[in-house]
Amino acid sequence: MFLSTNPFDEDSLKEECGVFGVWGQDGAAASVALGLHALQHRGQEAAGIVSDENGTFHTHHGLGHVGEIFDDPAVMEKLRGAAVIGHTRYATTGETSLRNAQPLYADFEFGGFALAHNGNLTNAQALRNQLVKRGCLFRSTTDTETIIHLMAMGRPGGPVERLIEALQAIKGAYSLVALSEGLLIGVRDPYGIRPLVLGRIDGGAYVLASESCALDIVGATFLRDIEPGEVVVISKQGVQSLRPFASAPSRFCVFEYIYFARPDSLLDGRSVYESRRKIGTVLAEESPVEADLVVPVPDSGVPSAIGYAEASGLPFDLGIIRSHYVGRTFIQPTDQIRHLGVKLKHNANRPLIAGKRIVLIDDSIVRGTTSVKLVDMLRKAGAREVHLRISSPPTAHGCFYGVDTPRREKLLAHDNTVAEMCAFIGADSLAFISLDGLYRAMGETGRNAAQPQFCDACFSGEYPIRPTDAGL
Amino acid sequence: MFLSTNPFDEDSLKEECGVFGVWGQDGAAASVALGLHALQHRGQEAAGIVSDENGTFHTHHGLGHVGEIFDDPAVMEKLRGAAVIGHTRYATTGETSLRNAQPLYADFEFGGFALAHNGNLTNAQALRNQLVKRGCLFRSTTDTETIIHLMAMGRPGGPVERLIEALQAIKGAYSLVALSEGLLIGVRDPYGIRPLVLGRIDGGAYVLASESCALDIVGATFLRDIEPGEVVVISKQGVQSLRPFASAPSRFCVFEYIYFARPDSLLDGRSVYESRRKIGTVLAEESPVEADLVVPVPDSGVPSAIGYAEASGLPFDLGIIRSHYVGRTFIQPTDQIRHLGVKLKHNANRPLIAGKRIVLIDDSIVRGTTSVKLVDMLRKAGAREVHLRISSPPTAHGCFYGVDTPRREKLLAHDNTVAEMCAFIGADSLAFISLDGLYRAMGETGRNAAQPQFCDACFSGEYPIRPTDAGL
Amino acid sequence: MFLSTNPFDEDSLKEECGVFGVWGQDGAAASVALGLHALQHRGQEAAGIVSDENGTFHTHHGLGHVGEIFDDPAVMEKLRGAAVIGHTRYATTGETSLRNAQPLYADFEFGGFALAHNGNLTNAQALRNQLVKRGCLFRSTTDTETIIHLMAMGRPGGPVERLIEALQAIKGAYSLVALSEGLLIGVRDPYGIRPLVLGRIDGGAYVLASESCALDIVGATFLRDIEPGEVVVISKQGVQSLRPFASAPSRFCVFEYIYFARPDSLLDGRSVYESRRKIGTVLAEESPVEADLVVPVPDSGVPSAIGYAEASGLPFDLGIIRSHYVGRTFIQPTDQIRHLGVKLKHNANRPLIAGKRIVLIDDSIVRGTTSVKLVDMLRKAGAREVHLRISSPPTAHGCFYGVDTPRREKLLAHDNTVAEMCAFIGADSLAFISLDGLYRAMGETGRNAAQPQFCDACFSGEYPIRPTDAGL
Amino acid sequence: MFLSTNPFDEDSLKEECGVFGVWGQDGAAASVALGLHALQHRGQEAAGIVSDENGTFHTHHGLGHVGEIFDDPAVMEKLRGAAVIGHTRYATTGETSLRNAQPLYADFEFGGFALAHNGNLTNAQALRNQLVKRGCLFRSTTDTETIIHLMAMGRPGGPVERLIEALQAIKGAYSLVALSEGLLIGVRDPYGIRPLVLGRIDGGAYVLASESCALDIVGATFLRDIEPGEVVVISKQGVQSLRPFASAPSRFCVFEYIYFARPDSLLDGRSVYESRRKIGTVLAEESPVEADLVVPVPDSGVPSAIGYAEASGLPFDLGIIRSHYVGRTFIQPTDQIRHLGVKLKHNANRPLIAGKRIVLIDDSIVRGTTSVKLVDMLRKAGAREVHLRISSPPTAHGCFYGVDTPRREKLLAHDNTVAEMCAFIGADSLAFISLDGLYRAMGETGRNAAQPQFCDACFSGEYPIRPTDAGL
Repeated sequence: MFLSTNPFDEDSLKEECGVFGVWGQDGAAASVALGLHALQHRGQEAAGIVSDENGTFHTHHGLGHVGEIFDDPAVMEKLRGAAVIGHTRYATTGETSLRNAQPLYADFEFGGFALAHNGNLTNAQALRNQLVKRGCLFRSTTDTETIIHLMAMGRPGGPVERLIEALQAIKGAYSLVALSEGLLIGVRDPYGIRPLVLGRIDGGAYVLASESCALDIVGATFLRDIEPGEVVVISKQGVQSLRPFASAPSRFCVFEYIYFARPDSLLDGRSVYESRRKIGTVLAEESPVEADLVVPVPDSGVPSAIGYAEASGLPFDLGIIRSHYVGRTFIQPTDQIRHLGVKLKHNANRPLIAGKRIVLIDDSIVRGTTSVKLVDMLRKAGAREVHLRISSPPTAHGCFYGVDTPRREKLLAHDNTVAEMCAFIGADSLAFISLDGLYRAMGETGRNAAQPQFCDACFSGEYPIRPTDAGL
Repeated sequence: MFLSTNPFDEDSLKEECGVFGVWGQDGAAASVALGLHALQHRGQEAAGIVSDENGTFHTHHGLGHVGEIFDDPAVMEKLRGAAVIGHTRYATTGETSLRNAQPLYADFEFGGFALAHNGNLTNAQALRNQLVKRGCLFRSTTDTETIIHLMAMGRPGGPVERLIEALQAIKGAYSLVALSEGLLIGVRDPYGIRPLVLGRIDGGAYVLASESCALDIVGATFLRDIEPGEVVVISKQGVQSLRPFASAPSRFCVFEYIYFARPDSLLDGRSVYESRRKIGTVLAEESPVEADLVVPVPDSGVPSAIGYAEASGLPFDLGIIRSHYVGRTFIQPTDQIRHLGVKLKHNANRPLIAGKRIVLIDDSIVRGTTSVKLVDMLRKAGAREVHLRISSPPTAHGCFYGVDTPRREKLLAHDNTVAEMCAFIGADSLAFISLDGLYRAMGETGRNAAQPQFCDACFSGEYPIRPTDAGL
Repeated sequence: MFLSTNPFDEDSLKEECGVFGVWGQDGAAASVALGLHALQHRGQEAAGIVSDENGTFHTHHGLGHVGEIFDDPAVMEKLRGAAVIGHTRYATTGETSLRNAQPLYADFEFGGFALAHNGNLTNAQALRNQLVKRGCLFRSTTDTETIIHLMAMGRPGGPVERLIEALQAIKGAYSLVALSEGLLIGVRDPYGIRPLVLGRIDGGAYVLASESCALDIVGATFLRDIEPGEVVVISKQGVQSLRPFASAPSRFCVFEYIYFARPDSLLDGRSVYESRRKIGTVLAEESPVEADLVVPVPDSGVPSAIGYAEASGLPFDLGIIRSHYVGRTFIQPTDQIRHLGVKLKHNANRPLIAGKRIVLIDDSIVRGTTSVKLVDMLRKAGAREVHLRISSPPTAHGCFYGVDTPRREKLLAHDNTVAEMCAFIGADSLAFISLDGLYRAMGETGRNAAQPQFCDACFSGEYPIRPTDAGL
Repeated sequence: MFLSTNPFDEDSLKEECGVFGVWGQDGAAASVALGLHALQHRGQEAAGIVSDENGTFHTHHGLGHVGEIFDDPAVMEKLRGAAVIGHTRYATTGETSLRNAQPLYADFEFGGFALAHNGNLTNAQALRNQLVKRGCLFRSTTDTETIIHLMAMGRPGGPVERLIEALQAIKGAYSLVALSEGLLIGVRDPYGIRPLVLGRIDGGAYVLASESCALDIVGATFLRDIEPGEVVVISKQGVQSLRPFASAPSRFCVFEYIYFARPDSLLDGRSVYESRRKIGTVLAEESPVEADLVVPVPDSGVPSAIGYAEASGLPFDLGIIRSHYVGRTFIQPTDQIRHLGVKLKHNANRPLIAGKRIVLIDDSIVRGTTSVKLVDMLRKAGAREVHLRISSPPTAHGCFYGVDTPRREKLLAHDNTVAEMCAFIGADSLAFISLDGLYRAMGETGRNAAQPQFCDACFSGEYPIRPTDAGL
């Protein structure tokens, strides 16, 4: 009669990780816990911290929200040291989960080393098979461990040399923070698919974070994005920048702007909030509709809905209310109430909706099941018409760079036309922003077909890095 | 280094309870759990359910969110019966908390009886002292138990007779749902200070709920508000309405519209969302300001900010982002980062705010400490000016009718002028909606000074029911 | 595949409670926790403590072993005060259990009052029905609460007067410790069925305990048994002794000596260990057998086995080993291993047993199921013969004075002759000590049939107090 | 005011592990859980199980008693497969503990492999340093992981070949059970220092266990001890015995007989119970004393006390009662009661002890602190004299073969004569069994000084295998 559910599971794509590191602050673990808290939208079900206390390393990992994992004073007291990294992610279950917990930690000849990874490697399985043949014992099922073993089996050297050598064998998307005695290391893959920013606290401690919103919470000033293919090494000598990889054109993930990143982040020079607002504007221009009210699917649809409303001259209002109390476990409705379409997360604002023609703004359609429920909910609340406008192009392809997508066959856009999708969802009309419109909203003059300015593989199927392990 | 905190504790008023009841549905406990989930904004830290299985009563109470307390299938399986009531509330701690858990349950001569209460009694302590002298043993410290003992010591009779007799001795604010074998009872005090609505599921089961948003989640249709001073008795004979109390003028709590109730609720004939939006409109008319952007304190300030933006012609945007991950426990910042004004719940949307003149819309000012932080946060994010507009009059008096207010001396408005408050908060300007403006926003022509249409004691100090226990 | 089991559940009688109180020691709660620890054989699954800090009362109750319930420093810190009482008992489950937790606490006109009870009242249900009619609300299902309500509804007066008045209406077995501001009260029912002893720590603090072994653990010196029908009131005035009840002949429970009490306790002037040893001696004289080895069922059978061995001239050895690791939950064997007679608690000492004729000494036979398993286990370990000797007469009747016995029909001795019991159990021979032999082992010249010196109702069916509630 | 304590911590030596494996039984995990339950005296604070379901391996590890770790049906359901191994041990704390959990599991080229170890390796640290240089990443701090990495870095081959090759580099004491697809492997080191026995269930499934008492609980028949230096491989082909190591003289740990093993076990052809009883006999012959009563320190001292009593003609009685309720956490006495010598685990049987001359039998003296308390407790209970007799020679040297001993300086016997020890303890006399007497009690004609029949390094300081890692 009950079921463990996750509010975000239902029908959305999930970023898999957030990383955060601090160098040069007494009690840095508290800052890292705060930084992870600010990055939980990138993975909210498990987290870990590793600290370096002059070459002695302390670790703590757990399942649950960051606030729960690190609310025990004894835990925080243990994580001594001025250089500390952390990781937050979606959880798998049971023992596997604890074995896969990041940051990974290992004892090397040169001393302790910890690594936290956001992204996904595309040739990790092939490398793993070779490493097992050479006698490596893998403790986890994560691709990240492949990097650690490559380092261990590599040429003698310090942590930076070994890490770079290992990464030269690696393909895929990765933003990394790593910790060794006295060193904080940040790396972004040559295409710069996942974000990583550098900040500083009062001219003292340095901070690496997946997004700039996590700098704000610890009072750090944003310095710059780590560049694609850059390795930064932070130590007593300050910030050293290395460029050990062959240069590649930047292909930042455009979906970070559409949905994953927090609206208050600034990534690769663009405000996430403003990007979403402009997407709404372009969407209104491309797909206008005669209606009474623009309603966002909260919270991710709000900026685009504001942009759509402004461009269309229609009023903007909260026609759907979101509950703040949907957690990791909850009541599954019994059969007799299930058919009523019980929605724990959303409720229609009936008095506002009744009798109106609604433009409903959502960020994406994955399986389409949520859209079906939302449109039905608005109709039951008395909406005369429901026109669904999506602030991304149709998601027709899987992601192999660190986003958890359903198998391709499950994607509604995979084998349905927009008209078929509209019929499935039961909306009066359905429109997506065009791929070219998306690039214009991002400030480009359009998509450079020869060399797209972003990774848009989930829309276009054009993968900048070949997904070898996936057999593509 | 850590501290247990509640995100809502900081500086806002807290509604103390939500009540919900279902009559005539197999497995009604699942509906009640869903209804309590929808009412958690009225009290999110403890909940309980009592079910009537043909005269055998089952109970379960717990601390935590509704989804956690009732996620165990064995618990739900135990709560058999077609008539069920529930209660959600703010928790106190430890054993006291469990003793104070509602619904209260007691075995009477006539059988089992359960009672859930939203509100606060003003003469409970005096009555309690008399009852103790007569040999009554109180198990809890709640005022609600006074009703139970009055019933037990009353004249022989059934549950309805005894409850009415008890309530005739009681003064204060109360919306009650009660359960006896085969009976669901709903009561609203003569002034109707707290809300209570009646709904029906598909022409079958009846539902009583603190707010209409909780009818939506179980697929119930809104029938009507329970009227001030009305007792409804739901049984096989249908809904019987009794009026056992001397009539009194309705004095519904106006703060329910301003802050407590969910925006998607319809209470006493008014949409909460629309009321807040109109308050924003009146506020813009009364206190305009030259600025670039209207920014709400999320989420409660959003509807008023939309109204203010519309009336003023200024753009509306999310200049402050709220975290969804602030739970019941969290990290307390260390001293070295505390001075940075770490805010776990809110972050300024820096790229949007920088260089702008901001109108910041909040629902109320209690101690003022949150306002100080928010204004400071916006300035640090680069705001040129911050003008604070409040969608309620100054809160200068305590509530004795079921809202947890700080002692009067702690209320910023108690002994400060608006100018002094503005200086304390550090805003460029500060304005509250006027008491008369508030009444106009509610659709009245103004406040009827002789007989106000609402309870506005927290603003005016005019208490419709004398707070005897408080010595006033 | 698994089952929650209790090692003591299987097939033995269970004492239901232990009580302990300290007056006049700073931080007395720590002593009470230790005292309850020493009394856990009287009830090991739930415990509670109430402390009096100059009229302010603190309470803590929990499920589990005493060591778990009171191992939290914050809990012990809370239980301030120099007068403290505690209770340990067998647990029921869930909310009921917490509602039934002892010591019971109530606020009276004269102030706070706490009560802990070992025993069972025989007219509590009848009194409860009358009290409910008079408007009393019972919070628990314990008979102990009846005493509290009788006190509340009684004539005005202090705690001692009200308690005595209440007890004058009560029938049954009770050893009580009670706490009121500045007062520790101890009571033993007129027949003195359950034990209660008085001790003193270094000429200072006074201690009341169910058994003398609990005095030892807190370093208290044994002063004397509380006498049947005596009320002792301990206060700044010292120990006051009252005799408010009509005198009755002492009928102390003889089973306390046979099984319930700890062997290191001294009760009503007799050493429990010595009593058991003498029972073994009498048993050897009454029921000798030609054999090779005397083996006890550990641990309760050890003293009688030593006595039997000594009297018979046979060697004594540990032919059965008891595991220390059988806790409250454990693995239930699967079907394929169940038929092997898996015994988590006991194992035969094969090398010792093989080829020998065994005299197996156990304290009692309840359902007989454990005896069947033990005899079978010894045979499988190679015993040539197994002669079972029981250190009590056949248990053919239920107890209504505070011991949890199965319904009478479930007692093997209820409708079986000794020969039938022997056949059921599969022993080569079976003998019980005679009722008269038991009295002789206790130092009497024999059982006084007109006025037995002990309560032996479970053997004789002669109940000193009529079990009214049970309909007998 | 409170402290987490372990009843066995106080002042005794601790065996570090027990191992158990089953091959060829459906649902073998349940048998393994039972077997581990029976081996908990060898390590009671953490346990793990790995099962082989046709090449798919399932694992579960936890802290606590076996009954707690495996009482969840979902856990047992997960551990599918007919070949299963388990491990029980003393726990360290926190994350380290989980990383060190056994059985260790690793994925090799040939498939999954799990290993459980009782004993201690003496050159593991040196080998580990070499392996780290070669690129091995250790996940734990256990010496057991060294075996796993040696296997991984070894010559290509199957699990048996790789394990044997690895063990040829290893020195120290080890009894191992290992699991690979379709194979259960048992190994005992060339000296046979730790025990390992083979049994069979009804002519079907095979069982490996640290002690024979664990065969009894699953209904297995004892077949034989695994021999020193033997490797047994159990598969569809039955039991294959390999002898890959150079032969060495057997040096079984004599302390297993004195204290570690359960009395109902049969190890290397000797009954543990009988061995202890005979030690008591020899001790009485070597060190008689005029006294009234022989009293064991329960439970380990009981068999020797029975032997001593028999040989001396003195009566045997339980003069000290042991509590069954001392668990992993408990109340620390406050200062005001600490000086009373509160003993949670033991209490003197006062009525028995008072006025008597006592021979107190204990198994060993480590730091001597427990002996001090016990002697003091008996004197306070009225003993006229206390003569302490120890059923082992003085423990003057540390163990490096799998027993947790204090640092040598902490051993009372390290730098004290027997007279000095007696004075420290406060006994009237003190005597240990002689080393030669111990060998005679074991059925030998005496200790063969050139080639002792047992490992007695903790008494003699003669280490059969050089403790290289320890720098000796």
